[in-house]
Parts: sequence; C-alpha cells; structure tokens
Amino acid sequence: MEARLLDGAALARRVRERVAGEVAELKARGVTPGLSVVLVGDDPASAVYVHHKTKDCQEVGMRGEQIRMPASTSQDELLAVVDRLNGDPAVHGILVQMPVPKQIDPAAVIARIAPEKDVDGFHPVNVGKTYIGEDSGFAPCTPAGVMVMLREAGVDLRGAEVVIIGRSNIVGKPMAALLVQPGVDATVTVCHSRTRDLAAHTRRADVIVAAIGRARFVTGDMVKPGAVVIDVGMNRIDDPTTKSGTRLVGDVDFEAVRQVASAITPVPGGVGPMTRAMLLENTVRAARRAAGA
Amino acid sequence: MEARLLDGAALARRVRERVAGEVAELKARGVTPGLSVVLVGDDPASAVYVHHKTKDCQEVGMRGEQIRMPASTSQDELLAVVDRLNGDPAVHGILVQMPVPKQIDPAAVIARIAPEKDVDGFHPVNVGKTYIGEDSGFAPCTPAGVMVMLREAGVDLRGAEVVIIGRSNIVGKPMAALLVQPGVDATVTVCHSRTRDLAAHTRRADVIVAAIGRARFVTGDMVKPGAVVIDVGMNRIDDPTTKSGTRLVGDVDFEAVRQVASAITPVPGGVGPMTRAMLLENTVRAARRAAGA
Repeated sequence: MEARLLDGAALARRVRERVAGEVAELKARGVTPGLSVVLVGDDPASAVYVHHKTKDCQEVGMRGEQIRMPASTSQDELLAVVDRLNGDPAVHGILVQMPVPKQIDPAAVIARIAPEKDVDGFHPVNVGKTYIGEDSGFAPCTPAGVMVMLREAGVDLRGAEVVIIGRSNIVGKPMAALLVQPGVDATVTVCHSRTRDLAAHTRRADVIVAAIGRARFVTGDMVKPGAVVIDVGMNRIDDPTTKSGTRLVGDVDFEAVRQVASAITPVPGGVGPMTRAMLLENTVRAARRAAGA
Repeated sequence: MEARLLDGAALARRVRERVAGEVAELKARGVTPGLSVVLVGDDPASAVYVHHKTKDCQEVGMRGEQIRMPASTSQDELLAVVDRLNGDPAVHGILVQMPVPKQIDPAAVIARIAPEKDVDGFHPVNVGKTYIGEDSGFAPCTPAGVMVMLREAGVDLRGAEVVIIGRSNIVGKPMAALLVQPGVDATVTVCHSRTRDLAAHTRRADVIVAAIGRARFVTGDMVKPGAVVIDVGMNRIDDPTTKSGTRLVGDVDFEAVRQVASAITPVPGGVGPMTRAMLLENTVRAARRAAGA
C-alpha cells in the first residue's frame, strides 16, 4: 500500500486562514502585525525567499516589508538597521535573510535582533527557551511546522522512536529539542555525517526526519515498513525533461520510500509551505505579545 | 576484566590546580575572581552544597561569598539581590541555589541573572549558546565536567553511539547538545521515562550517560561489553550497615556494571567532583572575560 501523503500545502492554507483571523482581530484593536525582512546583496534564491515571505504577510492582512541593502553593506550598517527596526513599534517581527555577505558575522546580527521580534527563533535566548521548554520565546519555523504536521496527521509521538538525520541549528537540533520535551515524549536520536551506521538507526525509526541536504539520500531499504517520513530537504537536481533543466527534490527518495512508509511529506508541497506558515504564526504571536493580548 | 575506574576526584584536583594558577595570574593583575552563591531558606542539603561551592572557591584563591535569605523571601526581594550582584564589579559569578521556595518562580530568577555572570549556565542565552555551539557563554557544569572526563579518559567520541538516560535541563539535554556538536561528532540518543525499550538502546551504546535519578537503575544486562558508563546519579538509599543508616549510590548498579563495562565513574568520586570543579572553571572564565583577558 502506498504511503499517505502529508499535504503541507493544504495544512499551511488552514494555518494561514487561522492567522488571517487573528490578524483581523488585532487590526480591530488598532494593531497591524508587521514583519520586516532584510536582504543584503542580490542572491537570486534569497530574493525569491524574501519575496515569498513578505507576500505571505500581505495575503493574511499583515504588513510585510522588504529592506534591501547592497552586497557591500558593512556589519555596522546592517546592525544600525536592526537597531532601528528593534525600536520601531510598528515592526513586530524582524528577519535578516541568511546567508549574509562574508564581511558580516551572522551570529552578531542574530544576537542584535530584539528576542521578542526574532520570529525566526535563531537568537540564543529563543534557542535556549526552545530547549528548556519555555513557550515565551519562538521556536524556529521549520521544526515548529513539522510538529504541527505530525500532530495534524495523528502521529502518536509518545514513546515513538524518532531518528533525525542532520544536526543543523535551524532544523536538526531544535527538532530534537521539540520532540524530546515532556508531553511530546519521543525518544530522539540525532544522526549526521559522522554517524557510523546510519541505516541501522533509520530502520528502527517510527518517524524519520531527513534534514541532511543531500538529494534522495534516504532510500527505501533505510525505512521500516509503516514508518512516517518527514522530508525537510530542498535540493535542486538536473532534469533535462523539465523546462528549466532542473527539478526540486527532497532528502528522501520519494518514489521508493512511499512504497514502504505509512505516511510521507512530498517535496515540494510538504514541509516548505509549513515553514512559511509558521513564520506568519510567529509574527502574529509577536504582535499579540507586543499588544499585551 | 573489571572496568577501569574514571577517577573524577583526582581529575577535579588537577582542574582545581589549573584554576588556582589562573586565579593567581588574575590576582597579579589586580582582579580577584569572585562567586556569590545565594541560598533562600534552610534546606540542609542545599546548605551543604552552598558551603562546598564557596569553600571550593576559597581553596583556589577566589572570593566565595554565601548570601543566605529566609525561606519567607519574596521573589522581588530575591530579584533585588540578583540585581545588586549583577551590578557589583567584584562579583564575576552568581548562582542561586535551587530549589527556591514555592513563592518564587525559578525561571524568573535565572532569567534575571546577567548572562555573563551565569556560571551555572542555566540562563536561556547560555542554554542557547550551548546548543548553537558558541563558546562565548557557559555550559552547565555537570555535562561540561562529563565532557572533560571523557576527553581525559581518551574515549573516542567521533561516530560513537552515546545513549543518555534522562532529559533534564541541567544534565540530559545539554549533555546531548555538547556531544552532537561538529568536532565531537557523537551520535546521540536521549531516552527518558517514556522510552519504550530502554535496554535496547543502552545495549547498543558505546557510551552511556545515566542521569535519571533512580538508584542503581542501569543493571549489568543493560550494558554492552566494553562500553563506557558515566553515572551522574546521586541517590541516597537506606543502609543499616553505615553510621548514618544511609548510603549514596548512583543511577548505575556499580558492582554489576563494572564487570561488563570498560570504564565507569564511581559514585561518590566520579561526576560530582567534576561538577564542582567546572563551577570554578566557569567563574574564573567569567572573571577573565570581565577583565578583558
């Protein structure tokens, strides 16, 4: 039997509708939630991401602002913009699109964003709160989106064996933090490029979260029959049959794994839309908190 | 063959000697590192811990101050003391002994300590830095001490299967964070009370870190021959053969597991002394940073 498709696009639409309702309520009270996205340089992929993020905001009734700075921007110039946004009461969420040019230290920029406006959840204070299990901060959007997907899909995480492939600060590590919390209660293993026998881990997993950044890395024989497979990967591969000559694939060999798994997220249309939706949710949460609501 | 004993007491002595040398250097430059430990109420066990911590400081030449407050202390009164210590340039490390009386929110107290003086490593900023892998903060003393023990014992962590039993914010979670970082490169599983088949995990582990708070919970049959076993537990059990009628034991059945493991930490004399030594190391580090050294 083929795996059930976990439709992130449809779920993200529902999240956006809920957020739009919350935005309308806040507006009725005189508060328009606002996200400012800063893009330094002119990387085309980054420009597309930033465009999506601000457009998403506008579609749910929020203010979505792009601030574009030249690739030659100094760290001090960028920090000055962050300071201005920190002090602007109309700005509830601030996001500096990564990567930044090499003359800028990304950690210094992230640490400068006011934690209560850090809707990416990358500031050390928010990372710390995510790990401690305090909900007064912001969890990073991708793992937060995966948690919503798993919950909506009815996946029983209590005592489940979850194997995460990848240990990045934006996906793997915070994903582990969210899954191991009391109340969620998964047993979590974090694997990575130095893991000795990765397949032995994935084969015992009830849930696999693939976030390693390698196209179709998780093959059918690495998956236990009936497992739930979450594919965080976004890899562009050559495909002469398409107009662009390339195609987007995940970290999972979708066609093979869907024959084994009980549920799977497609790429595109799986985790990606949920990541975007969670950014909206974090921003409206920031606005609610700022309004004391 | 019996397991090698990982002598935390001896290693802690070496750490203290090194710290004493650093303290002497700082004093020669006019800076005396100082730790202030705040104890609210009169819990006898807490009083002993606080006494040890300040005495340890004095033995390496640092200033170790106890501030005792009555059990009736309000949260505002405690926060006022924290504020005063935050502003006192002679105080480099601040530690509020946990637990605090129930009228006080421990998270509010920890969040009030200046992160650069939070030598316990419990402030969200320091928790976040530990997870991100930034070394500008403080890692909590117990997992930091375990890392030093493993390194000194020559345990090869790269690609090693490490199973942590326990997911507390002071041991289990930060232990996982330190072990999974690039450069350490262990494959880490966090197990806990909701884990379905705990023994299956521990039996595949090259290294077990037991921090579950249950006396002699890890038995010989749960350990792979040749594994390294780190016992973070401190449990007092009845023992009519001793003068006090009680005895301190770890989370590991020491006598049984030492027949199976290749190396093991005793209780007492294993992780405990290293935790105390790392508090000194964090405090002298705080003083060095404050002095711009």
